[in-house]
Amino acid sequence: MNNLQTLPIGVFDSGVGGLTVLQALQRKLPQESFLYLGDTARLPYGTKSAETITRYAKQAVNILLERGIKCLVLACNTATAASLPALQQLFPQIPIIGVIAPGAQAACDNSITGKIAVIATEATIKAQGYQQAIKQIRSDAQVVTQACGLFVPLAEEGWIDGPIAEAIAKEYLTPLMTKTTFDCLVLGCTHYPTLVKTLRKVIGEKIAIVDSATTTAQVVEQLLMDKNLLQVTSTPSTVTFIVTDAPERFAKIAKQFVGIEIGSDHVELVDLV
Amino acid sequence: MNNLQTLPIGVFDSGVGGLTVLQALQRKLPQESFLYLGDTARLPYGTKSAETITRYAKQAVNILLERGIKCLVLACNTATAASLPALQQLFPQIPIIGVIAPGAQAACDNSITGKIAVIATEATIKAQGYQQAIKQIRSDAQVVTQACGLFVPLAEEGWIDGPIAEAIAKEYLTPLMTKTTFDCLVLGCTHYPTLVKTLRKVIGEKIAIVDSATTTAQVVEQLLMDKNLLQVTSTPSTVTFIVTDAPERFAKIAKQFVGIEIGSDHVELVDLV
Repeated sequence: MNNLQTLPIGVFDSGVGGLTVLQALQRKLPQESFLYLGDTARLPYGTKSAETITRYAKQAVNILLERGIKCLVLACNTATAASLPALQQLFPQIPIIGVIAPGAQAACDNSITGKIAVIATEATIKAQGYQQAIKQIRSDAQVVTQACGLFVPLAEEGWIDGPIAEAIAKEYLTPLMTKTTFDCLVLGCTHYPTLVKTLRKVIGEKIAIVDSATTTAQVVEQLLMDKNLLQVTSTPSTVTFIVTDAPERFAKIAKQFVGIEIGSDHVELVDLV
Repeated sequence: MNNLQTLPIGVFDSGVGGLTVLQALQRKLPQESFLYLGDTARLPYGTKSAETITRYAKQAVNILLERGIKCLVLACNTATAASLPALQQLFPQIPIIGVIAPGAQAACDNSITGKIAVIATEATIKAQGYQQAIKQIRSDAQVVTQACGLFVPLAEEGWIDGPIAEAIAKEYLTPLMTKTTFDCLVLGCTHYPTLVKTLRKVIGEKIAIVDSATTTAQVVEQLLMDKNLLQVTSTPSTVTFIVTDAPERFAKIAKQFVGIEIGSDHVELVDLV
């Protein structure tokens, strides 16, 4: 056993979206502890420039490193698309895993025809991370994309099904479905899995729907094994939440978003600036 | 004539919303120049805490003061609700006008029964600014409120009418209309005037719809007259735009939002941190 093994896994997101990734990590690695940081003061990242996102992410990683983590999961597609290489270069002392490569892998595993649709935030689509990652795995793939600006506020409002969610999903997806006959839809934003029932209704039963959460958890498990960083003691695992603004709102949205019960007094407030 | 008269009027907003106020100011005061700052790196303010909003607004006011302005319009309801008194105390050297007192005045002028509904962002409703301002003018007023979290992204997506906008407006307004028979609806967020046609369709013809823009422009004109700060030379007026992130996105949304044509090369990028 080494000291690093007992450290938590850092999970960084702009807000609550990364909680879907945290849940997948907890399912896969129940013995591990986690330190989750949500940059709620400056969310959403989906409409910001790559430079600004990288600057904010850098500040977040510094806080997580000060607290002590053994690896970092960038549980935000936009942050991954905009800043993963920059962060890996800036912080060579720690393994950093993004959610896009695992998501692209899941897409390629689940597509037979190689025609893949990616839906994500404006910034993620613009950064072309999914498009490139999918092409790297499968060079003959045809990737179509659509930014879905209303899905994040819709999920945070808790309107994840019903006629409004369905009408919005149709508005975004119908042009994509008319354009091409894709057989796999990638949810390229960690908020989108909460809308999966509605998306399924709109695209029908035949198209595979994949997200990054489960494959990211597999990648993290493999990395921890390779680097001999798996938690091996029987210490009870813990999850600590840090946010940059409005802990009570974070706790409220976390509950309606993924059903996680966190008292707002269990969410610590930090200042990143 | 004094030197101050020739300075621009500062207009501060979290993003593009304040452009509806800028337009009202330009209509009322065509001889004046304006310096508009949109904190696009950290928008939206509507879900943030009062402390964080005040911290961000303070940084913005500092930049505007460095550039030179003769008065400041807080063209954002959320910033006004969360930080107007704090900013007035911090910057006694400059007159600061918020949009809530003028909006409350417009509501009281347009309501016969005194039953007034206010729709705004979560942070504006929580800060109770409209509720208090209306009661100060008319103590017997009955104010009902509703936070409409999806209206800002809806307006920024450009989906200001059609069945989706209408369904969302109904979802927010029907419970309000069932609760009370108000005769005046206050658009307590500078994004909402772009949705006015849809809102009119949902609430019918009889209820007055008011926003802060026009009355704020009247208050600013009166203030400039009282303080002998009106622009009296015939110098052509100018409008300068400063944003904290993504100038090209600001220019694009400004066009679809209020029809203002700004080349992205005419939007200056500054860093507030």
